Amino acid sequence: MPGIKGPSDYSREPRRHPSLKINAKEPFNAEPTRSDLISSYVTPVDFFYKRNHGPIPVVDDIERYSISLRGLVENSKELFMKDIWKLPKYTVTATLQCAGNRRTAMSKSRTVRGVGWDISAIGNENLRNRLDRMEKSQIAVWGGAKLADVLKLVGIPYLTSITQSGGKHVEFVSIDKCKEEKGGPYKASIPLNQATNPEADVLLAYEMNGEPLNRDHGYPLRVVVPGVIGARSVKWLDSINIIAEECQGFFMQKDYKMFPPTVNWDNINWSTRRPQMDFPVQSAICSLEDVCVVKHGKITIKGYAVSGGGRGIERVDVSIDGGKSWVEATRYQRIGIPYIADDSGSDKWAWVFFEAEANIPQSAEIVAKAVDIAANVQPESIDSIWNLRGILNTSWHRVQVRVGQANL
Amino acid sequence: MPGIKGPSDYSREPRRHPSLKINAKEPFNAEPTRSDLISSYVTPVDFFYKRNHGPIPVVDDIERYSISLRGLVENSKELFMKDIWKLPKYTVTATLQCAGNRRTAMSKSRTVRGVGWDISAIGNENLRNRLDRMEKSQIAVWGGAKLADVLKLVGIPYLTSITQSGGKHVEFVSIDKCKEEKGGPYKASIPLNQATNPEADVLLAYEMNGEPLNRDHGYPLRVVVPGVIGARSVKWLDSINIIAEECQGFFMQKDYKMFPPTVNWDNINWSTRRPQMDFPVQSAICSLEDVCVVKHGKITIKGYAVSGGGRGIERVDVSIDGGKSWVEATRYQRIGIPYIADDSGSDKWAWVFFEAEANIPQSAEIVAKAVDIAANVQPESIDSIWNLRGILNTSWHRVQVRVGQANL
Repeated sequence: MPGIKGPSDYSREPRRHPSLKINAKEPFNAEPTRSDLISSYVTPVDFFYKRNHGPIPVVDDIERYSISLRGLVENSKELFMKDIWKLPKYTVTATLQCAGNRRTAMSKSRTVRGVGWDISAIGNENLRNRLDRMEKSQIAVWGGAKLADVLKLVGIPYLTSITQSGGKHVEFVSIDKCKEEKGGPYKASIPLNQATNPEADVLLAYEMNGEPLNRDHGYPLRVVVPGVIGARSVKWLDSINIIAEECQGFFMQKDYKMFPPTVNWDNINWSTRRPQMDFPVQSAICSLEDVCVVKHGKITIKGYAVSGGGRGIERVDVSIDGGKSWVEATRYQRIGIPYIADDSGSDKWAWVFFEAEANIPQSAEIVAKAVDIAANVQPESIDSIWNLRGILNTSWHRVQVRVGQANL
Repeated sequence: MPGIKGPSDYSREPRRHPSLKINAKEPFNAEPTRSDLISSYVTPVDFFYKRNHGPIPVVDDIERYSISLRGLVENSKELFMKDIWKLPKYTVTATLQCAGNRRTAMSKSRTVRGVGWDISAIGNENLRNRLDRMEKSQIAVWGGAKLADVLKLVGIPYLTSITQSGGKHVEFVSIDKCKEEKGGPYKASIPLNQATNPEADVLLAYEMNGEPLNRDHGYPLRVVVPGVIGARSVKWLDSINIIAEECQGFFMQKDYKMFPPTVNWDNINWSTRRPQMDFPVQSAICSLEDVCVVKHGKITIKGYAVSGGGRGIERVDVSIDGGKSWVEATRYQRIGIPYIADDSGSDKWAWVFFEAEANIPQSAEIVAKAVDIAANVQPESIDSIWNLRGILNTSWHRVQVRVGQANL
């Protein structure tokens, strides 16, 4: 899009909700409190985590805004918003999770590098026109065109793995400017076969909660890649490039890769690993802080569970004795309707909430762990999954609770 | 297929390789030795695990053999082998793994019900015409028509989630007879959106290693569902039914479901769980028995790693001190070519072999564990995944090795 670029300083940042916990100010990185996060199944825009790598772009003139589609295609194309709006509009419920979610806890085991996050660098977006079935106040809805339909406009059919000119990946480039790219834009790519598969539900989204995207979340147009770490869902889209090899940007090649615990900043070799895309089964308790005091022993344990790649949640187990014994929590996506994972995939990209009643003794270690439909489980401890960038901490979530007066 | 049904007794069983370890004789269930299993990357027919629930069907007259496609479709159809052969032929490398693989080890923790299996109820089939790149002797090749193309013949297009008459699942019915179905045929189903997705690579296979299927493996026609537990890859196909709900057969509804460790044979409620399809990340050491003696401390640790759903293997870690410290093993699918998992999915349905050299002390506990591209990990112990049917034991594989003379 010629002429529109993100600002170089933080003088035009948008207003944010005052109850957000700010993990870094410039660029702005913040997450909701645990109780705000689970205040509704579909996360309100205000409480959706904000993950940025530079100042928030300003697009004042929506008429002039356009994205270019180019690279290994027969004909390049410039698309304006009116072209995108013309395509069939889809709405998809998809949970986005930052790869760094729960990094702060991993850092307690051994220091990692990166912005610290508690358990709320995650949020859920609704999109299958279920507005009628939920309270208006509970809803953040994202809607947009399917990337597969956009790519058809430049002659790439559904289910294409490679274009005639050798394109195998789809790169998304932002209009923002970030330090890690030496002032250049944030970028990322996904494989072409995912981009051209309409069932992968990759969206070019222009709406959240029935409203145009707000600036923090990518106004006027962003990518939403369901089932994949948040880092690939590029905001403030500038161009889409069909390329032969995966994107060579910083966040693909020098970040968000999974290393074994033995790799440190002295012996790291980035080229030995692929960029992380899909993510493993995850869950966290949101109704309690990691160390807390409750008035009564009768408590409700509540939280979220989600897995990557469209794998639903088969089960959430909760323990009040540090993991010695377990009970199964109830799960739901719609309040009052118990959730059973379904291989044919209703709301397959979305988290579930879980809930269990318990009567705890004077002091208790409460633990949650989830199982996805592929029978993948969360690892018990951080040690075997610790990695220097602190990504994908999916170890059992433990909270220490004492019954009594807060001041005792 | 009118008139052809499986026999009721075991008088016409095929000949099998004498080195197979027989876990049950009638029905015949057997696996290769560990060293036979890893003798080649692509498992020879003789060494492919045999999993049966009744006598092996006999189809003498291939001209008369046909399958019927019926149910919630506009027009039913009877397809003969010549109709299947006419469709484009595909070859796919896909690892099949019995859900009960490694059950014997799980039973040592707490007794489970089911045929006992060591670590070899798994095998790998080649199908992408890579014959030229491998030794002929290493290859078992399965080839066939894509189920998505077969379903097109009855008017169901690619990427269909529901037919006009409400079909959402595709049921495969065998011609065999099994006890669990009270003398009826083995059956299973998969979701229609998987069956009609050409990228899911579901095959109606008629070849293995360039030869017609042998009787143990489903002659003349079987289903191969890559990335899913072996139980859904129905052999000796009789009919394909488009149905509204998943198949109600025994092996879908009363078996191969994942229960938590708290469920036992007194409190089990089968209807609370979905049939297992996808499977979690798995690995096993094949170059050593679980308790063994080696002559020299310098050893090669070799085995396989695989994950379900087309998720490649990111890493295999090996320990010679019971899991205190780890080194990364090399991985390969083609001998001499190090394997790096690829999101665009070359050989995504196939296992990798891993290898690590080690110099072990007088006695050592050797452990292997794998990480898939979604960063899913294997659980450390059996306890948290123990289930009464003993399915999907994917706990870290441990072997006890002593250096010395076997008789000491």
